[in-house]
Amino acid sequence: MSWPGTVRMGADGASLEVLDQRLLPYAVRWLVLRTADDVRAAITDMVVRGAGLIGNVAAYGVWLAALEIFNEAGGTAFSSMTDFSAAVRRAAHGIKTARPTAGNLAWAVDKQLAAMEAAAGEQEALFILRGSADELARSEADACRLIGVQGKPLIEALSRSDRAVNILTHCNAGKLAFVDWGSALAPVYAAHEAGIPLHVWVDETRPRNQGARLTAWELAVNGVPHTLIADNAGGHLMRRGLVDMVIVGADRVTRRGDVANKIGTYLKALAARANNVPFYAALPASTFDLTLTSGDDIPIEERGGEEVRLISGETAEGEITEILICPEATLARNWAFDVTPAELVTGLVCECGVCRADESAIAALLGKGKSDSREVKQ
Amino acid sequence: MSWPGTVRMGADGASLEVLDQRLLPYAVRWLVLRTADDVRAAITDMVVRGAGLIGNVAAYGVWLAALEIFNEAGGTAFSSMTDFSAAVRRAAHGIKTARPTAGNLAWAVDKQLAAMEAAAGEQEALFILRGSADELARSEADACRLIGVQGKPLIEALSRSDRAVNILTHCNAGKLAFVDWGSALAPVYAAHEAGIPLHVWVDETRPRNQGARLTAWELAVNGVPHTLIADNAGGHLMRRGLVDMVIVGADRVTRRGDVANKIGTYLKALAARANNVPFYAALPASTFDLTLTSGDDIPIEERGGEEVRLISGETAEGEITEILICPEATLARNWAFDVTPAELVTGLVCECGVCRADESAIAALLGKGKSDSREVKQ
Repeated sequence: MSWPGTVRMGADGASLEVLDQRLLPYAVRWLVLRTADDVRAAITDMVVRGAGLIGNVAAYGVWLAALEIFNEAGGTAFSSMTDFSAAVRRAAHGIKTARPTAGNLAWAVDKQLAAMEAAAGEQEALFILRGSADELARSEADACRLIGVQGKPLIEALSRSDRAVNILTHCNAGKLAFVDWGSALAPVYAAHEAGIPLHVWVDETRPRNQGARLTAWELAVNGVPHTLIADNAGGHLMRRGLVDMVIVGADRVTRRGDVANKIGTYLKALAARANNVPFYAALPASTFDLTLTSGDDIPIEERGGEEVRLISGETAEGEITEILICPEATLARNWAFDVTPAELVTGLVCECGVCRADESAIAALLGKGKSDSREVKQ
Repeated sequence: MSWPGTVRMGADGASLEVLDQRLLPYAVRWLVLRTADDVRAAITDMVVRGAGLIGNVAAYGVWLAALEIFNEAGGTAFSSMTDFSAAVRRAAHGIKTARPTAGNLAWAVDKQLAAMEAAAGEQEALFILRGSADELARSEADACRLIGVQGKPLIEALSRSDRAVNILTHCNAGKLAFVDWGSALAPVYAAHEAGIPLHVWVDETRPRNQGARLTAWELAVNGVPHTLIADNAGGHLMRRGLVDMVIVGADRVTRRGDVANKIGTYLKALAARANNVPFYAALPASTFDLTLTSGDDIPIEERGGEEVRLISGETAEGEITEILICPEATLARNWAFDVTPAELVTGLVCECGVCRADESAIAALLGKGKSDSREVKQ
């Protein structure tokens, strides 16, 4: 099959269609979002997921929220632009708080609200919000393409004539997570397209199995050699010399380079350090949160225990079914992210270059790249 | 429900009944083993699992093999005891090679074959093999009880008035894995029975989910507070100070203290070290393999990728179903164990005491305990 994309404008020009990632790899179905509530629910329920895609959808979500508010008022003017703005801000707050950890979500919503300030009236606000969301989507896609350009030489440098470069990744930070190219997988796709022999170890990524369901699927669609492994296997593979490099995405990175990413990333970073395997996080500049120094200050989302207790998949008859994998009465807890301290990170790959995970190197890199990161914007 | 046990003599006195652990926690069903092939298959297919239980069943398996050979010959004498012995040895080899990693399997089979040497005839051999298996089961159960006695003070020392001791364990090294008490869980049960408030974080233990299916089940049956978590969560919990101690079982431990245990154990040991959390492995002396120095020399079993691709569990309608959790064409690999180097192990808990994971401390401890470990026996 060809690449379906993850988000597109609805045919009516007043809605957004998103690929329902809960159903992959079993079905390719699109869900229509029309309201702020639709957008919030799609993010909370992980119809869309991945820091970059969440930011993208949230940006369009603010536009949809404004459109909804405008239409509910019958297309007539509010008593003042201030009232309209306040209503949009309230709806946008609902989207912004749909999930707490990914930096891009709050960043994208704040960016939209700041853009709206320039509008003299409601219709101009709608026009600006739509244009600003388009611009954000374009620039994020471009950033991801450039992450590929910046990260490809890291893979190339590990290439040997006698075997493929073995790259381990955790969760899904690919085309499904960031629009068009992905973050962690952008260098992988760039290297693969350049003909560098490589092979990806795909962590299944419990409890939601984004690796097994999404990364395995998108690597297959794009023809990249890969093998699925349990999350538990990475340490053994590194001890045996079967991993040349770890590359993951990021949901938020602090000014000193602490990386919040999918739960379990930290364990792989520890194993990489213990076995002298380089460990990279790849991210667009929008994922930096320069207002935070320590990763301990990043809010870590705790989701429902049912995501651990129940797994869905396909039966031999081709039906999608959910099964319980523990005793009925067992309680489970489910933190969605962990923090990898900067000391364990070999380098950060972003659209403006590759840098060490420390405060001065990050500041220098973002300054060079005329970064769009949070602090620079403010 | 009350504790069902894991293995018992068949009513006919010529078979073994084992609890089918593949069906837990959904069903408590017993499988009858009559032949060497039955025993080998039960071990390979993980009807019985856990280093201690495998050793136990293998010991009875050699007796069953001898009984089968004797009965096939119509109860008449072989042309010589040497021929009978040779036939038993061949059958025993099939059992011994059912799985490669656990030290107890080869140890138990070798112990039986050595005991058989004393027999002057076939019937005496049968009598000796049955008695020797009973004795092995008794002494292993006693060893596990003593592991509890030796390990309880480690938990007690971490006890604080304001909260329960948080103990993280990986896989199942409980009553289901070692007869009667378990290895890793023996100190947990001993501390719980002594009224020390404690709580166990249960790693689900992909790909076969022994934590979710077995440890959660047996802790519930025995009234021990616990919470199920994804294997990925342990590092985050340790960074947040929510783990006071890690205790795991072992499938084989070398003379210098390298520990082979369920895949993923090594990652938890790395996180424990990075966060100053004590990391213990608990094991009967029979799990030591003093013929090996480095853990790199322990053969690591690779099982079929289907164990990663497919998960079984219970549907909402109460049916046990197997589901595919990745694209149909995805390849998976599946190593069952990893090795935690001695440097990461705070201590080894065995029936004769607790010691550092290094060669001299292990030798001293086993000497003191008149150990039954491999080298001492030879």
